[in-house]
Amino acid sequence: MRGTEMCRIAAYVGPSIPLENIIVRPRHSLLEQSQHATQAKLAVNGDGFGIAWYDQCEAPGLYRDVLPAWADGNLTSLCRMVRSRLFIAHVRASTVGETSRQNCHPFSHGRWSFCHNGQIPHFAAIERKLEADLPDHLYTARCGSTDSEMIFLTLLANGLDNDPTYAMAATLAKIGSGPDPVKITCTFSDGETLYGFRYASRGSAPTLYMSGTLDNGGKSFASEPLDGSTWEAVPVNKIVKLDVRQAA
Amino acid sequence: MRGTEMCRIAAYVGPSIPLENIIVRPRHSLLEQSQHATQAKLAVNGDGFGIAWYDQCEAPGLYRDVLPAWADGNLTSLCRMVRSRLFIAHVRASTVGETSRQNCHPFSHGRWSFCHNGQIPHFAAIERKLEADLPDHLYTARCGSTDSEMIFLTLLANGLDNDPTYAMAATLAKIGSGPDPVKITCTFSDGETLYGFRYASRGSAPTLYMSGTLDNGGKSFASEPLDGSTWEAVPVNKIVKLDVRQAA
Amino acid sequence: MRGTEMCRIAAYVGPSIPLENIIVRPRHSLLEQSQHATQAKLAVNGDGFGIAWYDQCEAPGLYRDVLPAWADGNLTSLCRMVRSRLFIAHVRASTVGETSRQNCHPFSHGRWSFCHNGQIPHFAAIERKLEADLPDHLYTARCGSTDSEMIFLTLLANGLDNDPTYAMAATLAKIGSGPDPVKITCTFSDGETLYGFRYASRGSAPTLYMSGTLDNGGKSFASEPLDGSTWEAVPVNKIVKLDVRQAA
Amino acid sequence: MRGTEMCRIAAYVGPSIPLENIIVRPRHSLLEQSQHATQAKLAVNGDGFGIAWYDQCEAPGLYRDVLPAWADGNLTSLCRMVRSRLFIAHVRASTVGETSRQNCHPFSHGRWSFCHNGQIPHFAAIERKLEADLPDHLYTARCGSTDSEMIFLTLLANGLDNDPTYAMAATLAKIGSGPDPVKITCTFSDGETLYGFRYASRGSAPTLYMSGTLDNGGKSFASEPLDGSTWEAVPVNKIVKLDVRQAA
Repeated sequence: MRGTEMCRIAAYVGPSIPLENIIVRPRHSLLEQSQHATQAKLAVNGDGFGIAWYDQCEAPGLYRDVLPAWADGNLTSLCRMVRSRLFIAHVRASTVGETSRQNCHPFSHGRWSFCHNGQIPHFAAIERKLEADLPDHLYTARCGSTDSEMIFLTLLANGLDNDPTYAMAATLAKIGSGPDPVKITCTFSDGETLYGFRYASRGSAPTLYMSGTLDNGGKSFASEPLDGSTWEAVPVNKIVKLDVRQAA
Repeated sequence: MRGTEMCRIAAYVGPSIPLENIIVRPRHSLLEQSQHATQAKLAVNGDGFGIAWYDQCEAPGLYRDVLPAWADGNLTSLCRMVRSRLFIAHVRASTVGETSRQNCHPFSHGRWSFCHNGQIPHFAAIERKLEADLPDHLYTARCGSTDSEMIFLTLLANGLDNDPTYAMAATLAKIGSGPDPVKITCTFSDGETLYGFRYASRGSAPTLYMSGTLDNGGKSFASEPLDGSTWEAVPVNKIVKLDVRQAA
Repeated sequence: MRGTEMCRIAAYVGPSIPLENIIVRPRHSLLEQSQHATQAKLAVNGDGFGIAWYDQCEAPGLYRDVLPAWADGNLTSLCRMVRSRLFIAHVRASTVGETSRQNCHPFSHGRWSFCHNGQIPHFAAIERKLEADLPDHLYTARCGSTDSEMIFLTLLANGLDNDPTYAMAATLAKIGSGPDPVKITCTFSDGETLYGFRYASRGSAPTLYMSGTLDNGGKSFASEPLDGSTWEAVPVNKIVKLDVRQAA
Repeated sequence: MRGTEMCRIAAYVGPSIPLENIIVRPRHSLLEQSQHATQAKLAVNGDGFGIAWYDQCEAPGLYRDVLPAWADGNLTSLCRMVRSRLFIAHVRASTVGETSRQNCHPFSHGRWSFCHNGQIPHFAAIERKLEADLPDHLYTARCGSTDSEMIFLTLLANGLDNDPTYAMAATLAKIGSGPDPVKITCTFSDGETLYGFRYASRGSAPTLYMSGTLDNGGKSFASEPLDGSTWEAVPVNKIVKLDVRQAA
């Protein structure tokens, strides 16, 4: 049986900054949210974490581990040293089952990175069909067993490269609905644009906020506002784009 | 800087049972307390765990890891398979610093095992003195950096083998007091008797309960009652002994 | 890309013994083979390890981790404390890719356990077909990404429960052959009988030896003889059974 | 009992490059040496690894883990993404005992980083004395249990900040000699200069080579030459300095 996943996300695009400016330093940083989330069913997100960040290469760097984020000395050091103009970070809460790096977000494929907060409650009923519909190169790319990674691969199969809005609609159609509501709040990027999306087939979608202008001109998505600046809720059922060119 | 440690403990002595009967199966088992503690400052104890159990050898078996207990598939399997007449288990919450197996409880030395919930807030001021007073064979036995392991080694240095009550008094005297209250709730064993102890230099000691008669005739200590049977608070400042011979 | 896997196996059936009598204590124990294998392409098998052992329950206990076996203090402790009448142990060498517990052997399903040394070089070409042919309950049981786990699940799908010899023949037929030779040396068990098998579609099969009579009346399989007693090579293309009833 | 440590080191100073140019890409890179060292007693260095690298801050970044370097996907990603003008990397081989991040090299303190290949065979006899002679702030900084970390802290206590040559002589004098030869080959840095040193109280010192001019104008130390360019042995008993200003 797979359990509920309720995670926390933070993402940034703008002038290059140390990762810690989003992940560690804000009053309600992602690291703080890993222990004291206030807008989630579970206050603690201790089942692994991950970061995808972009620099000169097309493919993002990826750092994921199964420890609670707050217990990883490497993470603190990396967040202090590594600077990036676009990155996505994630802390995971999973109530059932063994944690593995392969199941930690973000996932990456080529230039894309993706992380997710939510769940497909009827995933067991549709997993084989979703997997069977993947083209070979995406079937081979699957490393873990989560619904989250499958959403990402299905987005890619549905043309994420060309039209994210269409890809998302086609993916949601393929996922369909089950007895319990599908909930998908996610952020993803191709290294140029940062995308945010909130969706629930019924009821409320998991939270996602955006900050139009951080004090350095950058923009952010976060499951919960990181600090006292202005944050507004991402609208549901609509892909929101934050762009490095506008932000610069 | 070292942070607050607030952990949860469960221990058993009696007829041989699978470890899961204490650690996994009760309604408010230690595994449940690792995610939903109700009598601790922190509800989540996700910074490692450990078990010491006795069988035919004098020295206990020791299994410790840095993952949250609930995320370790090995732990579930071991608790189902391994039976023991006397064992101590611990889940750890540490608000600061990197987790390592060496800092996970229980600690063991020879036939003794020990685990602790509490803290010595002025530990930094007395660590060198405590360490310097250890005999060579206990100095060498120190593997980690916690105040908990040092309490254990100091108990051994003060004659735990011969007189636990004296050893505890001498250890508390050596620890002394500081600006913030010393709090020590611990369970320990030599493989024959299970000891429980609660102490605070000021204010209330961390909780520890005992169950005189489980349904199989066994006896238990636990930071929080494991189930609906009768549990009473361990009195403060007095070593309580639970014995396998009485229990059998 | 998936790399070569060359692993070492040891298994035992007979009077209940501490696991360390096979895994740790022999002169050329499995632990020794993890660092100094002499009959393998790679002398070092440091990419995780695992043990499956049987006791009173039908399902085996399972302990697997990604560290080198020689660096895991828990393993030493478990091998000293846990006794079993039938167990399988494995140390893994993988030249490419990230190690995860899900990819460590043995694999288990219900009462069965399985570990493997060898490879299907054309696995990428047949993985989708093999997976598609699994019934739902075995598709769902797949946790990792190795050819080894797929061989095990395909054996189960082909009736391992009823007729191991037929299941193996059907599985080999389904795997077929590719440009490079398929090599499968494996041990597996249902908790009553210990099975050993060696196969190569061309060239020599990976080594597997059996010891008819250990000094306690038990029997063993091992990739390399564990000690100076009499060991003979397991014949190729023929399932060899070691039985606890004969051994007792 | 502590076992032999035989490790491999690589370090670089010069124009900023991706870490992978030293750690991953060369024909006989540090990663290659972690599996196939040719000038060490042990060909495999699988007991953890670490990197210290310098960028804009005074203190280096530190990334260490207990897995074999070749099995860590995070390491590959970091080495591709992170660029540095000065870094030290280390892969560890330890024949006895549990691996922990705290015992992985490099160690760092303030702006200094340090890694070591060799051993003090009589360390058990002098550990208490060495530790007792540390000033409080360095006593507190000790996180692990290795002779290597103690050498580093003793160097700092002996004035590494002001005079590395004096600090090394004073440290060697304090270590003295025992029945088996002391062997210390190390590289260390304050973020400006890269230091290399080889020493044996008797017999030959562990290897260390330097490359005066890599093809980008940078300079390197390595336990074994990384590629086909010109490498010369670091002389014994003499601190060799490679400097970023000369290299730039």
